Amino acid sequence: MPLRLDARDPAFETAFAALLAMKREVSEDVDQAVRAILADVAERGDAALVDFTARFDRLSLTPQTLRIAPGEIEAAQARCEPRALEALALAAERIGAYHRRQKPEDLRFTDALGVELGWRWTAIEAVGLYVPGGTAAYPSSVLMNAIPAKVAGCPRVVMVVPAPDGVLNPLVLAAARLAGIDEIYRIGGAQAVAALAYGTHTIAPVAKIVGPGNAYVAAAKRRVFGRVGIDMIAGPSEVLVIADDTAEPAWIAADLLAQAEHDTAAQSILITDSPALAEAVERAVADQLASLPRRDIAGASWRDFGAIVTVAALADAVPLADRIAAEHLEIIAADAEGLAGQIRNAGAIFLGGHTPEAIGDYVGGSNHVLPTARSARFSSGLGVLDFMKRTSILRCGPAELASLGPAAIALGEAEGLAAHARSVAIRSNAV
Amino acid sequence: MPLRLDARDPAFETAFAALLAMKREVSEDVDQAVRAILADVAERGDAALVDFTARFDRLSLTPQTLRIAPGEIEAAQARCEPRALEALALAAERIGAYHRRQKPEDLRFTDALGVELGWRWTAIEAVGLYVPGGTAAYPSSVLMNAIPAKVAGCPRVVMVVPAPDGVLNPLVLAAARLAGIDEIYRIGGAQAVAALAYGTHTIAPVAKIVGPGNAYVAAAKRRVFGRVGIDMIAGPSEVLVIADDTAEPAWIAADLLAQAEHDTAAQSILITDSPALAEAVERAVADQLASLPRRDIAGASWRDFGAIVTVAALADAVPLADRIAAEHLEIIAADAEGLAGQIRNAGAIFLGGHTPEAIGDYVGGSNHVLPTARSARFSSGLGVLDFMKRTSILRCGPAELASLGPAAIALGEAEGLAAHARSVAIRSNAV
Repeated sequence: MPLRLDARDPAFETAFAALLAMKREVSEDVDQAVRAILADVAERGDAALVDFTARFDRLSLTPQTLRIAPGEIEAAQARCEPRALEALALAAERIGAYHRRQKPEDLRFTDALGVELGWRWTAIEAVGLYVPGGTAAYPSSVLMNAIPAKVAGCPRVVMVVPAPDGVLNPLVLAAARLAGIDEIYRIGGAQAVAALAYGTHTIAPVAKIVGPGNAYVAAAKRRVFGRVGIDMIAGPSEVLVIADDTAEPAWIAADLLAQAEHDTAAQSILITDSPALAEAVERAVADQLASLPRRDIAGASWRDFGAIVTVAALADAVPLADRIAAEHLEIIAADAEGLAGQIRNAGAIFLGGHTPEAIGDYVGGSNHVLPTARSARFSSGLGVLDFMKRTSILRCGPAELASLGPAAIALGEAEGLAAHARSVAIRSNAV
Repeated sequence: MPLRLDARDPAFETAFAALLAMKREVSEDVDQAVRAILADVAERGDAALVDFTARFDRLSLTPQTLRIAPGEIEAAQARCEPRALEALALAAERIGAYHRRQKPEDLRFTDALGVELGWRWTAIEAVGLYVPGGTAAYPSSVLMNAIPAKVAGCPRVVMVVPAPDGVLNPLVLAAARLAGIDEIYRIGGAQAVAALAYGTHTIAPVAKIVGPGNAYVAAAKRRVFGRVGIDMIAGPSEVLVIADDTAEPAWIAADLLAQAEHDTAAQSILITDSPALAEAVERAVADQLASLPRRDIAGASWRDFGAIVTVAALADAVPLADRIAAEHLEIIAADAEGLAGQIRNAGAIFLGGHTPEAIGDYVGGSNHVLPTARSARFSSGLGVLDFMKRTSILRCGPAELASLGPAAIALGEAEGLAAHARSVAIRSNAV
């Protein structure tokens, strides 16, 4: 049974706060193991990669076979179902079109004093993309991570993907080819993160590492942060549906379960002003669950973390939604647009009954790498800006320096930084 | 003596790589102490803040006196030198004008299929600004951190600043008032970071924490990251000057020393194609150092981390500058603009002989919080985007769902996510 709450209940605030504070992830303490793996790869390079891959992935490699050859990628693609390849191509095209609109503009202007100011955006020179092996190998995630980097103009995008027992998902390789990834290595775990961060004889280092991974990968990313950039550390996925009685219960149930099937730690929440809808959705979830291949996972997620909240009026859902700060927010209500406009915190908003989150996961065009665990309060989904950086630009001539110099000297002196003040004064004297 | 390198020397690559790899910071292991402080503030709230402040800052507070009253701020401002206040006001005005140009635009469009797509930017609801006490209390940094948050539209900007022995820098309080900061608390260290992240009875929690601090503050920020957003962890400051023989050696020397006076771990580097300039700058640094109040700090920085590199032609400076990825880059050369255009990695670029970095530190208008320790390879200086987040928006009607649905179903099935496929199919059947 999911949690059932009513916002009019006097005990609601305590129960809702407990829902928000619920710990959905067991944090494995793998930090010591990861520290040793990173140090070994930094020290021994390719030889350490070969050793760890033999041990963890039961795969025997040499420095020459770390990299997946173009012929192998083509052969993998030829083994994929044409229907899946076509769907992937449509997704890639739409993701590219959406993200091209995110390219930022440079600016250069001269202000009233004559000072030239501005900034310039440049792409990160080399980016590494971690792709999990096994069941969590999602070709759609390859597109979502790699295409924004290529749109940003990153000249080198490198992918690492473990091949346990030598097995790779052919559709993952096809997605990598479609996204224009430049190099692919069949390594995973903390050792792959180390190779990307420090470089080895075979693998040149990158400046930023993105992509999801298990506890070892997450711990390795935290440790190399600073030497390289990293993206967010992703937590279990979540959806919030806000609906009124215009919504179709079976559709909402399907969306709640689509979230729940990801992971037993995933979370699906419905907020509605209709007690009848709340009842109907709960029944529909139970019905649909029975015939779901991943019913054990989805059932555990719904039982342990699912919630249905009833409110007196849909406007009352807005402050609750801002506190939940959901990764995915579906609004299926007469005034979906109006409600969306009032909400501050959400990774992505899906409007209306015909926009299931799964469309956004695959082919909508927007990114499916979104802030989890309430981090939509302060962060955004992945985009082109994550693969670029801004350099500010300033130019004064003698007249502008004469205008601004006295204030800079005053502040330098007030802060006790005489050499700052002198670096301005020495020029002013020469003006 | 600073390091002297010549790029034409056969041993150059090894020496330059060693310069880049130089460790300038001693990393204090304060993590265990910080963990205990965070846990205590999370548990005991205001009472823990009062205890830690008595112990570390020798200051006796109550929950009622944690917050600095408006009258106190006005009184502090009245004690500041008018010349410094005027300079601060000019700085605030120019920082505001520059950052207002960074406000991002929302986008909403309908594509060829009829799908509505876009994104919306919203300000972070509450931001905390850490301001160090003691000698590193820079009023200019208060402006540089707070003004972008206010330009972004953050409704609540909170400042924490320790008051060792009860002493506060009046110009820091004046800067806070000028920047429109909403609340100021006289607390510091890991306990202040904890209060901002977890909240106490007196201090409501924030969603993001920015601003520089010592090893305790940095460790605390790393630990609360995830629960709240944080900005970068700042390292010691650095400047790279690229100059040809059109440059004035004494001006360059003044700029190298302005960097060096910050911290014994600061770094100042000159790259030039003129051996005569290299000699003259080295002599000028020695001359100017003698009369500098902070000559012990600046002298140690220049001796331990300073470097002068000569190259055959200025074009050879470009790849070296990209590897250094300097926080501040001054280009004082006949073709400064052309060289700047070729460089990918720099936090900020200052063009021409009349743009000392100190102008950018105080009154240029661009931000002085910039990526240190080579992180300009993958990150940007502080700006308005750091205080906002983007929510993507998607809306399909029945026709658009019919167009995109089959591809989403194909990918859901290919990824083994049957509930994803069903959430689309269940609607398509109803179309």
